Amino acid sequence: MVLGLGTGSTAAFAVAEIGALLASGKLSGIVGVPTSKRTFEQAQSLGIPLSTLDDHPRIDLAIDGADEVDPDLNLVKGRGGALLREKMVEAASDKFIVVVDETKLVTGLGGSGLAMPVEVVQFCWKYNQVRLQELFNAEGCEAKLRLDEGGKPYVTDNSNYIVDLYFKTPIKDALGAGKEISALEGVVEHGLFLDMASSVIIAGSDGVSVKTKPFLDMTRGGPVYGFGVTLQL
Amino acid sequence: MVLGLGTGSTAAFAVAEIGALLASGKLSGIVGVPTSKRTFEQAQSLGIPLSTLDDHPRIDLAIDGADEVDPDLNLVKGRGGALLREKMVEAASDKFIVVVDETKLVTGLGGSGLAMPVEVVQFCWKYNQVRLQELFNAEGCEAKLRLDEGGKPYVTDNSNYIVDLYFKTPIKDALGAGKEISALEGVVEHGLFLDMASSVIIAGSDGVSVKTKPFLDMTRGGPVYGFGVTLQL
Repeated sequence: MVLGLGTGSTAAFAVAEIGALLASGKLSGIVGVPTSKRTFEQAQSLGIPLSTLDDHPRIDLAIDGADEVDPDLNLVKGRGGALLREKMVEAASDKFIVVVDETKLVTGLGGSGLAMPVEVVQFCWKYNQVRLQELFNAEGCEAKLRLDEGGKPYVTDNSNYIVDLYFKTPIKDALGAGKEISALEGVVEHGLFLDMASSVIIAGSDGVSVKTKPFLDMTRGGPVYGFGVTLQL
Repeated sequence: MVLGLGTGSTAAFAVAEIGALLASGKLSGIVGVPTSKRTFEQAQSLGIPLSTLDDHPRIDLAIDGADEVDPDLNLVKGRGGALLREKMVEAASDKFIVVVDETKLVTGLGGSGLAMPVEVVQFCWKYNQVRLQELFNAEGCEAKLRLDEGGKPYVTDNSNYIVDLYFKTPIKDALGAGKEISALEGVVEHGLFLDMASSVIIAGSDGVSVKTKPFLDMTRGGPVYGFGVTLQL
């Protein structure tokens, strides 16, 4: 089984558990495709066999966290800075399982008031910052260049910058917004992950629940489908 | 006047001429926005005042060459490797004048049999090379990583790679193709410049001709509109 390994504090727990299951012999025959340099390093240190999209262009299952989840299981991701590689790996996955706690649930994307990241080339990033902000006048958007701890521009694994978008009100039309952002020259990727998640596992004060897309239920003849690996997390 | 300065062997003549006109005093009040590091260096050496899209987000006129021009004035550009910055600058230009010789005219884009470049992030470029080639099975496409003179991957001004697409037959639906290419995660930009050129100046064995988009004629009440600067080239 080829497994996409997400990035971030939640995904790190999943990667650690996969490493533990492999070490204990409860899991075998796994090849991991990491979504960032730091997930690569974590998985390598745990002895998880690793590969890349170049060698494994189709992935059976990806597991990752998310920054926001809306009622249709559309996501905001990338606050950890790995949005491009996450999107490449997760778009190549037959099934994409998202693990979050209930604080990540929003009624509309952008509704948390926290960053929706856009990865842009370094060349004329200010120009794209202005253009991005102008796309979302209706939502009261503020676009800011992401800085690292030293106050310098944060540089992604792909040598690009990130412009973070902060919305006063949720994005009205996420699908349209994604297309408009992508159409800007110099934009490499954005943090709207639309129609990609198969299921979302939500840890809440009342326990763990699983949300699955209705249309996926129908193709499989049941209300919810699960995967042993993810449900053990 | 803010002037977008193209990249490549043809554009270099235009930049040189603008420098000469400025030096002679026949031209003044020009600010140039270069589309590559090498155009920046050429223009700087000629004393052309320079700026960027960050400071001049709207450009009055851009002048550049092209690798292919179809009957609707759609273009293939970027064999010189500067496609992203060219597209950013030229998309920001009120008017975009293309200068070519008649060997660049094709009945359909991709029809020259030479490269149509796609700029991709370095991460998993092979994966995207395969996906790009598969998009154009109908056209008999071969996708190749561009190499530099030393046989190493060519790296763009934005630290990305270029996958060159070679077509056996012209692209059937260039607009659709552009959207499909852009939708691939990890693709930064492609060399299809669609519905961007205002006019194309063509040097042929019978002299120089100018092709202008019919819909542009109507908004200006004449069959052809020209610019002193470009027509003197």
